[in-house]
Amino acid sequence: MSDALLLQLEIDQLNARYAAALDERRFDEWPEFFLPDAKYTVQARENFDRKLPLALIALESQGMMKDRVYGITQTIYHGPYYTRHVVSPALVQGEEGGRIRAQAHYAVFRTRPGDASEVYNVGRYIDEIVRTPAGLKLASRTCVYDSEMVLNSLIYPI
Amino acid sequence: MSDALLLQLEIDQLNARYAAALDERRFDEWPEFFLPDAKYTVQARENFDRKLPLALIALESQGMMKDRVYGITQTIYHGPYYTRHVVSPALVQGEEGGRIRAQAHYAVFRTRPGDASEVYNVGRYIDEIVRTPAGLKLASRTCVYDSEMVLNSLIYPI
Amino acid sequence: MSDALLLQLEIDQLNARYAAALDERRFDEWPEFFLPDAKYTVQARENFDRKLPLALIALESQGMMKDRVYGITQTIYHGPYYTRHVVSPALVQGEEGGRIRAQAHYAVFRTRPGDASEVYNVGRYIDEIVRTPAGLKLASRTCVYDSEMVLNSLIYPI
Repeated sequence: MSDALLLQLEIDQLNARYAAALDERRFDEWPEFFLPDAKYTVQARENFDRKLPLALIALESQGMMKDRVYGITQTIYHGPYYTRHVVSPALVQGEEGGRIRAQAHYAVFRTRPGDASEVYNVGRYIDEIVRTPAGLKLASRTCVYDSEMVLNSLIYPI
Repeated sequence: MSDALLLQLEIDQLNARYAAALDERRFDEWPEFFLPDAKYTVQARENFDRKLPLALIALESQGMMKDRVYGITQTIYHGPYYTRHVVSPALVQGEEGGRIRAQAHYAVFRTRPGDASEVYNVGRYIDEIVRTPAGLKLASRTCVYDSEMVLNSLIYPI
Repeated sequence: MSDALLLQLEIDQLNARYAAALDERRFDEWPEFFLPDAKYTVQARENFDRKLPLALIALESQGMMKDRVYGITQTIYHGPYYTRHVVSPALVQGEEGGRIRAQAHYAVFRTRPGDASEVYNVGRYIDEIVRTPAGLKLASRTCVYDSEMVLNSLIYPI
């Protein structure tokens, strides 16, 4: 029992480090939260619920994540904004064949220069997590967001 | 000490399962989080603070909760919306006579079709929780919300 | 390992008690979360990131905090509002010389009489925490907020 509970704490720490890296704009660290062949998907809830394949972002390896970071930091022209993730304690759903299944609800707030903070993207992380010698790593993270309408374009990872 | 801390984790898991059931629209599961004779109340902070009895929703048994779910899913005509609960780690306040007292701050975001997500209802859960063979169950949950003005009608449980 | 994880829980309880005291307007209890010579700072992210000294609030002792509480509750004329803090599980960053370093992301929602709740201030707590016979106490809390534009004046502590 107590082991299962401690697992929540380990995942909370993973989620807190993940959120801190993104919100503090240490984007280079973001792919390091994943396994080399991990998947990262950002998908509208409507499509997720209907098992439709269309996703806003669908990256299928750590390499693609690094490309994405390069795009964000070096090439995409966009209006700058700050993000702030507030993530609920994780719900640990089980472990099978070395894969931990967990989810967590998140709210991401956006702040543009000179403007008030606003609700940007809310939803849940649906995760598969693997224990490695370097700690817990994401084998798969699907960000299912409620909003059909995304405020302007979504540049930074959720 | 450590037992009291682990209790926070158990309550966090309860709150996470509760939030997931509501936000994923598994409303039939909602009454199962409560004891048969449990109370569920949604009350404005202003009334709660003054100990006034008026509440937006006041259900006094699991049976009334099931009625409410039937109403929501079968009979009430309303504009559909998604909800997303983000709940803070629970504050464990004590245990007396087998009843655990705890509270947690929550923010519920609402997303209507084709619209951006918005702050819907924020407040705190004030709970009495009982340990049963089937896990922790709510003997009483009072949702005390800050907003005096509720955006349109509140259809789904908080 | 497990000790480090339990520390997260202790800090989560500290943050939950802190948030509850503020949101329930028990302002007199607020300085008690700090050591006598503790620092409390509320600073825009832009200034924090550039290591600029300008801060919205900079209190350098528990005595100054008590003065602030006196000001809030007895002397400042301001439009009343409710606050609601939703705080993520804490990220424990290390312990050195008896000082625990931790941070947590927060969202504070504001509700004015007769109005809907709105996003008020989002950011992170950057904390130094000390273990005392009376439990964990803040030696330093820096609230770094994303918004450059603060909605009206910020009266109550974050």
